[in-house]
Amino acid sequence: MNIGIVGLGLMGGSLAIALKKFPNKYKTFGYDHNLSHIKEAIELGLVDKIVESFEEIKACDIIILAIPVRSIVKSMNDMIGVGENVTIIDFGSTKKEIVSSIPPQIRKNFVPSHPMTGTEKTGPTASIENLYVDKIMVVCDLEQSGVRQQEVALELFNDIGSKIIQMDSASHDNSVAFISHMPHALSFALVNSVLVQKSSDDILALEGGSFKSMSRISKSSPIMWSDIFIQNRNNLLLSLQSVKNELEKCEDMLKNDDWQGIHDWIEKANRLKGIL
Amino acid sequence: MNIGIVGLGLMGGSLAIALKKFPNKYKTFGYDHNLSHIKEAIELGLVDKIVESFEEIKACDIIILAIPVRSIVKSMNDMIGVGENVTIIDFGSTKKEIVSSIPPQIRKNFVPSHPMTGTEKTGPTASIENLYVDKIMVVCDLEQSGVRQQEVALELFNDIGSKIIQMDSASHDNSVAFISHMPHALSFALVNSVLVQKSSDDILALEGGSFKSMSRISKSSPIMWSDIFIQNRNNLLLSLQSVKNELEKCEDMLKNDDWQGIHDWIEKANRLKGIL
Repeated sequence: MNIGIVGLGLMGGSLAIALKKFPNKYKTFGYDHNLSHIKEAIELGLVDKIVESFEEIKACDIIILAIPVRSIVKSMNDMIGVGENVTIIDFGSTKKEIVSSIPPQIRKNFVPSHPMTGTEKTGPTASIENLYVDKIMVVCDLEQSGVRQQEVALELFNDIGSKIIQMDSASHDNSVAFISHMPHALSFALVNSVLVQKSSDDILALEGGSFKSMSRISKSSPIMWSDIFIQNRNNLLLSLQSVKNELEKCEDMLKNDDWQGIHDWIEKANRLKGIL
Repeated sequence: MNIGIVGLGLMGGSLAIALKKFPNKYKTFGYDHNLSHIKEAIELGLVDKIVESFEEIKACDIIILAIPVRSIVKSMNDMIGVGENVTIIDFGSTKKEIVSSIPPQIRKNFVPSHPMTGTEKTGPTASIENLYVDKIMVVCDLEQSGVRQQEVALELFNDIGSKIIQMDSASHDNSVAFISHMPHALSFALVNSVLVQKSSDDILALEGGSFKSMSRISKSSPIMWSDIFIQNRNNLLLSLQSVKNELEKCEDMLKNDDWQGIHDWIEKANRLKGIL
């Protein structure tokens, strides 16, 4: 099967690497707006062939949209006209707005998905082998995809070693707001707050591991994440309110010198030990 | 030199391990209120000798207080009466309240220090070799320590491979509030917010790396951290206000659909790439 990968960054590039294990099953075609991405992808030998026209992507059996979520929505109309057997898979971190923007005539072609994996790094050089192995692939609103498309997508996800779970797109967006998008907002807020108050020397001197953990994802791509934040605005606002409530509890306990309250609040967070 | 280690958890235990490289220079004596800690320390062979009375600790050449910061303050009076050549080093994560609680008659004995290293794990079994190697050791208000004590402490810190920096205790407390204490509060708040809203299954399914980074330090000890939060209350409140301001900026931009503003806010956080 010919598989057209739109976007040769971390997600698309790592998918291309994963598919090299199946040279007789998948042939990869890469497409990217960014010329330096194309150059890097060629140097790294990420895909079997770089294509320059989107029509060549549309002629593939499988199309992967591994681009920022706003670009996924913008590219919807370009995909009208694909053959009825073509499977289109997007890797967007938000799902509801993407799903509602799919033109009805290609709805069955589409399998909206979200691989729960990644790093803070971007571009073709960030691609790594085994990015998808043993990682969750969320597939949303699967009943609205064509039967053939369901089979093709699930087989592909199995081939790259993902663990598949199904979810409706509204639940997905609410859950990832809390478990992924709001934590990113916290990390951006932390770093912006610290960079205003403290010098690089202070940070380097006093960084003992905790700041490094908490700031790692603040290095994430501004384009990718501003797209995600805007598309999942309402859920993100809910989750930000929820974490601010917790911070205000902490502030109140500090002001009241409530050692026991703070102790119990931290102990409650410790319950995570039984989960992760 | 005999070195008495009060508290055989992660910090004290790891120090004992580090000193095993100098069998002819340092002999380690361990003291802990917690009987299961003593049992584990014996099983792990952490120290050369376990002692049961604090008087035996007071007879050592160097005393290390590797206990929660409130316990350090509480133990001050117990240390009155040490010989004038004894060096007392505390490893507390706050410094100002500890420094101001040192009885004047042992002020020269004292070298207030803060090793910028650790993990979220606790107890003797958490002890690791090389915990201090190439890590910063902050030494506060050093001019108030005796000349001999300064030499003994700095030599010890060199021996375990730490990089020493000096700071006054007020600056220390303000800086670590932003770089360490507030990030812990963020992690506790994040996890408490998510545990209320989401099931363990959701967390396990949708955790793609970012939540793991952001939640790691939420597993930290409630006793240790409620002590730190209370002792560094004012600086922590300042830093919480600062991070909440950033979160509110983010909320305002979301409400105003301000893609460019969010993009620029994230890009500002990306400046960390040049630092860490």
